[in-house]
Amino acid sequence: MIATQTTDGAAVAEHDLQLHPDGRLRHLLSLRGLSRAQLTALLDEADGWLTPSGKPPSRSNALAGLTVANLFFEPSTRTRASFELAGKRLGADVLNLDVNTSSRKKGESILDTIYTLQAMQVDVFVVRDAGAGVPAFIARHVDEHVNILNAGEGEVSHPTQGLLDLLTIRQHKTDFANLKVAIVGDIAHSRVARSAAHGLAIMGVGELALVSPPALAPDPKEFPGASILDNLDEGLRDADVVMALRIQRERIGNLDGIPGIDEYYASYGVSNERMKLAAPDAIVMHPGPMNRGIEIESALADSPRSAITRQVTNGVAVRMAVLCAVTGKGHA
Amino acid sequence: MIATQTTDGAAVAEHDLQLHPDGRLRHLLSLRGLSRAQLTALLDEADGWLTPSGKPPSRSNALAGLTVANLFFEPSTRTRASFELAGKRLGADVLNLDVNTSSRKKGESILDTIYTLQAMQVDVFVVRDAGAGVPAFIARHVDEHVNILNAGEGEVSHPTQGLLDLLTIRQHKTDFANLKVAIVGDIAHSRVARSAAHGLAIMGVGELALVSPPALAPDPKEFPGASILDNLDEGLRDADVVMALRIQRERIGNLDGIPGIDEYYASYGVSNERMKLAAPDAIVMHPGPMNRGIEIESALADSPRSAITRQVTNGVAVRMAVLCAVTGKGHA
Amino acid sequence: MIATQTTDGAAVAEHDLQLHPDGRLRHLLSLRGLSRAQLTALLDEADGWLTPSGKPPSRSNALAGLTVANLFFEPSTRTRASFELAGKRLGADVLNLDVNTSSRKKGESILDTIYTLQAMQVDVFVVRDAGAGVPAFIARHVDEHVNILNAGEGEVSHPTQGLLDLLTIRQHKTDFANLKVAIVGDIAHSRVARSAAHGLAIMGVGELALVSPPALAPDPKEFPGASILDNLDEGLRDADVVMALRIQRERIGNLDGIPGIDEYYASYGVSNERMKLAAPDAIVMHPGPMNRGIEIESALADSPRSAITRQVTNGVAVRMAVLCAVTGKGHA
Repeated sequence: MIATQTTDGAAVAEHDLQLHPDGRLRHLLSLRGLSRAQLTALLDEADGWLTPSGKPPSRSNALAGLTVANLFFEPSTRTRASFELAGKRLGADVLNLDVNTSSRKKGESILDTIYTLQAMQVDVFVVRDAGAGVPAFIARHVDEHVNILNAGEGEVSHPTQGLLDLLTIRQHKTDFANLKVAIVGDIAHSRVARSAAHGLAIMGVGELALVSPPALAPDPKEFPGASILDNLDEGLRDADVVMALRIQRERIGNLDGIPGIDEYYASYGVSNERMKLAAPDAIVMHPGPMNRGIEIESALADSPRSAITRQVTNGVAVRMAVLCAVTGKGHA
Repeated sequence: MIATQTTDGAAVAEHDLQLHPDGRLRHLLSLRGLSRAQLTALLDEADGWLTPSGKPPSRSNALAGLTVANLFFEPSTRTRASFELAGKRLGADVLNLDVNTSSRKKGESILDTIYTLQAMQVDVFVVRDAGAGVPAFIARHVDEHVNILNAGEGEVSHPTQGLLDLLTIRQHKTDFANLKVAIVGDIAHSRVARSAAHGLAIMGVGELALVSPPALAPDPKEFPGASILDNLDEGLRDADVVMALRIQRERIGNLDGIPGIDEYYASYGVSNERMKLAAPDAIVMHPGPMNRGIEIESALADSPRSAITRQVTNGVAVRMAVLCAVTGKGHA
Repeated sequence: MIATQTTDGAAVAEHDLQLHPDGRLRHLLSLRGLSRAQLTALLDEADGWLTPSGKPPSRSNALAGLTVANLFFEPSTRTRASFELAGKRLGADVLNLDVNTSSRKKGESILDTIYTLQAMQVDVFVVRDAGAGVPAFIARHVDEHVNILNAGEGEVSHPTQGLLDLLTIRQHKTDFANLKVAIVGDIAHSRVARSAAHGLAIMGVGELALVSPPALAPDPKEFPGASILDNLDEGLRDADVVMALRIQRERIGNLDGIPGIDEYYASYGVSNERMKLAAPDAIVMHPGPMNRGIEIESALADSPRSAITRQVTNGVAVRMAVLCAVTGKGHA
């Protein structure tokens, strides 16, 4: 059993920042600092947006009259599309702003861009940035009625990804406490791994193994209670959930201690063969986009034990849930 | 009278692919393999989206709750806008994805992009790609409930353009069987010419003349029954419909046998003077965007015999009709 | 009291062009040539889109079934977003076209792009272009039922910005006749200054001071009745409204007679200290995006006397009002 909550200063500050005084969620900046009850409520709300068949998020006017701005300082297809669809299916007006190609050319500060859009009555900002601290920085400065959602923050966190990972695991497994989860890949640089770890810790996961080449291993202090491993077999043994991370092609073979593609796949590629070490009913996950044949065997990604497509579907539902939670709309 | 149906293997395969087992249209990949009755039904549905004045496509909620993704791997203003408006006027949620600038940077395969969007409950993919075979490739892999519309496929085909050309001709002329249609320009590289020829053959057009400089002439086997000409006067003589194609400026003067701009206009430019050879009530068409003064005289493009604007209006109606047909919505 | 109306040939031509024969507004190309009654009606309509709290423009279906195309030949975040939100909040379908990246590559003329979109039943074109004359040129060629809104025309004019400036002033001050307004910055190249001056002249402003470094001073003939100054203190003295303009960084220090950044701020930066010369209840405005610490002191921009955020909010309301006025919808 690993620590259920990281309590360093940053988490506490974010915790204060992302909650209303009465404890309701105001922003989603990080999963750190949220309680198990809060995560459970979000997962329940997300489940509520899935039909009994488990497939299509249904349609609603819960957010009619509200405006959601996707403010992406870093390019993205899938996360942007997921938030855009979540907003539209809730009846919100959605504004896509690719900030690289417009106002930043003119040198305007991020904060002035936010103030401007806020003055146009944007209600929710979905922010992605390659740098650390931008979502919290923005959250510290916006008006009381405005909500900030972190859609990917440098290497720091990606909380809606963490939530969709939790939702996917919860749909397949009954109880976090008895689970072994293995995350495999470039842990050191992964916001996906960090948010998954935050969420799993809060939900009280039984065991978390983080597997990577030594050069891509994280600082153990960041992941209290987790096992930091460089041996994939050890990580996969008896795992109930295996999450392969995308490896950045530009890293491969270019850093000391990071193998080339073939060698990477041989040592750290998650394959059907390798999965024999895991629990018989283990599932495989990947945040996408995948490098098939590098971090994951293509046939495994398409096999019945793959929950990868499910993760994407859950992503829309989770973003609908978070939009509802911070705006005070939705089922609850 | 030219052959009413191309029956080579590719057409048969696409035919199987784009129809449901009961014969209803599932995807629109090509006009080849469709029956005259099927094309007529699509044209009738398109007409139904035009008001009695023939102008504005009316508004509807026929596709409310459905999501249409414009997946353009090749840039386009007019076709993308036409599909976007068609979707919005039917009440669908429309997602524009410019794939050049996002996921392809990360090396994700086209199929994984499709799987991802499909998992987000995208119902219809409108696909444009510079390469051949991409729409059919995608159609072969998507879930049963997903529909693929080809919005321009390399030099191969552009079926909604073919349909809007047919609709425009049908609005002006009573009977395809007695018509002579001349298509003028870079036939060899034109998906517009190919889809027009497919559609005209199915509708039983009387005569089809394909006019181009010899270096841009097509393989006659591709156009069974059509006359392949390099003399514009011969092609225009007694023609009822004259379709000028866009010539790519980068081709002009750069290939053996392809004349420079002035020479091209002198030999292959469709002009008011030249149109005296055609039938007195002949109409002129162009798929746009036009190079005025190169493939078509500017005054002719704006003259009463020009149906070019009408083509654009019909384009929205045709795309509404196709969206309705494949999703099983609409008037029918 | 400065001249209430510029009556040179261009203004008269635009005046004829932008009004219906019965005097109603058809296009918004420039504030020049409009009457005080017409501007007042637009400001009243804009006020009608603000709730009693003065904050959120409410929602409506006034433009349901209409299509608004944002045709931006010059990049923009804030103005494009403002028009997009105005259109969406009125229930229109909004089409964003970034013309740089698509049809212009293919060499299509602006007019053919317009004709094409018009044939797709676009009702309103919102046009921004770096060149002079483009909106009027388009307005001269479109169909009777189509409306053109100038969203920024080279250095010539930016009429919706002029209107939002007037609205902001009217909300803070009771009577234009007794006001002194000072505009500070690169007057010579500013479409914002020109449209503000047009609007203020029509509303009968008491005094207009235009302050700039000599190298950026306008031709006095363009601003009849205004004081052209190069001394900031003189301009600010007893001013009721101070409008700082954005200075293009690329101009600073690169032209004879234009100072570097520090020198610019020292001589022409609008600061709290400097504002002591103005009327005690003077307000400060800026069209954005701001260069804090260059043309305006950062603390002043965020101070209670700053109306900058209010301008942005008013911008959406003004664009809603203009959309309603030209389409004949709205409250009136």
